[in-house]
Amino acid sequence: MSARARTHAAGTAPALTPIPERLLLGAGPSPVPRSVLDALAEPTIGHLDPVFVQVMEETAALLRTAFDTANPATLPLSTTGSGGMDALVVNFIEPGDRVVCGVNGLFGERMADALTRAGAELVRVEAPWGRALAVEDLLAAAEPGLRAMVVIHGETSTGVCQPLDGLAAACREREALLLVDCVTSLSGQPLSIDGDGVDAAFSGTQKCLNCPPGLSPFTAGPRALERLGARAQPPRSWYLDLSLVGAYWVGPTDPDAAPRPRTYHHTAPVNLIYGLREALRLVVEEGLAARWRRHRRAHEALRQALGVFGFERLAPAEEALAPLLALRVPDGLDEADLRARLLREHGIEVSGGLGPLAGQIWRIGVMGVGARPDPQRRLVQALADELGGGAGEALSALQAGWEQ
Amino acid sequence: MSARARTHAAGTAPALTPIPERLLLGAGPSPVPRSVLDALAEPTIGHLDPVFVQVMEETAALLRTAFDTANPATLPLSTTGSGGMDALVVNFIEPGDRVVCGVNGLFGERMADALTRAGAELVRVEAPWGRALAVEDLLAAAEPGLRAMVVIHGETSTGVCQPLDGLAAACREREALLLVDCVTSLSGQPLSIDGDGVDAAFSGTQKCLNCPPGLSPFTAGPRALERLGARAQPPRSWYLDLSLVGAYWVGPTDPDAAPRPRTYHHTAPVNLIYGLREALRLVVEEGLAARWRRHRRAHEALRQALGVFGFERLAPAEEALAPLLALRVPDGLDEADLRARLLREHGIEVSGGLGPLAGQIWRIGVMGVGARPDPQRRLVQALADELGGGAGEALSALQAGWEQ
Repeated sequence: MSARARTHAAGTAPALTPIPERLLLGAGPSPVPRSVLDALAEPTIGHLDPVFVQVMEETAALLRTAFDTANPATLPLSTTGSGGMDALVVNFIEPGDRVVCGVNGLFGERMADALTRAGAELVRVEAPWGRALAVEDLLAAAEPGLRAMVVIHGETSTGVCQPLDGLAAACREREALLLVDCVTSLSGQPLSIDGDGVDAAFSGTQKCLNCPPGLSPFTAGPRALERLGARAQPPRSWYLDLSLVGAYWVGPTDPDAAPRPRTYHHTAPVNLIYGLREALRLVVEEGLAARWRRHRRAHEALRQALGVFGFERLAPAEEALAPLLALRVPDGLDEADLRARLLREHGIEVSGGLGPLAGQIWRIGVMGVGARPDPQRRLVQALADELGGGAGEALSALQAGWEQ
Repeated sequence: MSARARTHAAGTAPALTPIPERLLLGAGPSPVPRSVLDALAEPTIGHLDPVFVQVMEETAALLRTAFDTANPATLPLSTTGSGGMDALVVNFIEPGDRVVCGVNGLFGERMADALTRAGAELVRVEAPWGRALAVEDLLAAAEPGLRAMVVIHGETSTGVCQPLDGLAAACREREALLLVDCVTSLSGQPLSIDGDGVDAAFSGTQKCLNCPPGLSPFTAGPRALERLGARAQPPRSWYLDLSLVGAYWVGPTDPDAAPRPRTYHHTAPVNLIYGLREALRLVVEEGLAARWRRHRRAHEALRQALGVFGFERLAPAEEALAPLLALRVPDGLDEADLRARLLREHGIEVSGGLGPLAGQIWRIGVMGVGARPDPQRRLVQALADELGGGAGEALSALQAGWEQ
């Protein structure tokens, strides 16, 4: 029988590998609450159904709270966080634009790559992996004629948080846009799109929002939309063109346009939106300020606990990203084997290093419901089991950290 | 209290609008079986977890069966079907490429737009909305120097299926690629990527596969990958660059590359992949040939039943797309009001026309589990209720159609 005839015939479908329970304490995805998973499994309805339009409005309103913005153009793009990066670049950067890009980790490198593909004239501002960029270096690079400055607020490859102070003012003075990757920081690290003067930003759902991956929360303010409207050529991507996506999600993005009904653009990932809506509801219920405090406390508590085993934080305290604890692995430890054992024997995922830091650091997620004492105790206990001791001291350090 | 302080405080989260049950018989999304919804709600695990790698392999293998291809580079892209269009264009078209694009409906127009954004030298071949393109017109446009021919296999805006006969041979003769949009046709209309000589194609999950929207099944053969490898400039999109995505999903796409382990590219939409895997399992269990026959039978049965109410198929019989029945609305019927009543009173979604066909046609999905007698009976009965009669005759016609 030919291969073709075989595939066309009715067949015994293969048995599918069952999905295990994991405690996700890596760089993402983060733990997903049962209520969010249950929301995913609600019945699919049409992307133009009046009820779904209501769901979109609720989701966008919750997202504005999470971003701390009044931007009407705030919506989850139908792509993952990495696709959000493409969207940021393709909408707001034109070929030949001079763009300052901060590079101090893998996600800064990716951004630089995406900007180069878009034809930008790139000005790289660098810092060592594990350190924040000096704000004065960014400001010094912001020469007249600059069109945009792009920074990674939460560098997931190194656990570094980039301070934004002074960047918005410098960008406004030069009529440049301030564009920010907040994939790992959104709702876990203080960030206010409006308060910090960010013109456009993208995030992911699978970090501090505790939603499965697959959407990219996105926001764009008036200066960014003006830039989009004034482009000489439309964005290279039809799918990510915010003037088209926005017409479906929030009506016209052009502030001078007459109000008009939503227009079909693409079929939104209906069930993922259900999940995001529920995940955002949990964020708003807790409140941003309380959530930021909790993430910081959880970060410090876990850092102290893992210090007992000899792990030391990569970033200086004042540059550390609360939702992602990057730790130098103690000398002599077979880190890959230990991570494999944590996963296999204890069902706990932590992440290793990337690029030049592979084999040298661990990246531990402190994200949303993962930033609580219980999951952290499980990790500490499992590590003590595998390392042959230290549980008592490490658990005490954890508890002390939470009580501070 | 300022707006900012208000949003930072812990709040009463708003009540979320509940999700109703719908019978989805529009142009998509299509009905999603409970086992697929339940798969979505399985626990999220890491995108690099060895178990998830196994899930990816199972999904890709099932997808090869659905596409009827041996292409290793067969995978669900982490974007919706519309994003798959962007991926097709951004990977295989370079600025200045001469490209024939068939345009006989909205999705052909979109493709032409995407090709123009990519800098292609566009050769439009047209047919009226509601008709297939004449194969001889496509062949006549395929002059020497052609780089690609792009057609919409299932034109969702008109319910027309584009014959592919002769296109692959003509393209090969000219060293051009044959690129196909099979969003609405995959698994509902006869199509063999390898048998029909298609070099690359994209689809969506929310049509005949009965999976929620959010992924774009994609396949690329050796000629397409060779073209990708020979590009003068990398694709404009970092996210959709198949040489990067492929390294995560299936290893290197370059046939000359040494085997190497999967490399992280982006965080896959883990839970959507669970859903797709289950949806594809159901497809393979039925078998492609049986599935194609069932869709054709369901299409004809419903056409005959709705003919009782005065609806007439837009496309000629030999050009009709089985999974999408586009019907001219009888004169004098307030079609928008009737669709609203079907949704509100009966929970049944059907779609109206797009562009020049708005107000003139209905588009009824005949997709996967929607292509069965039970859901069709519900639609016929609801229509008879709203139109004040005809149920008996229409239901008899439906049954007769299924018994043919």
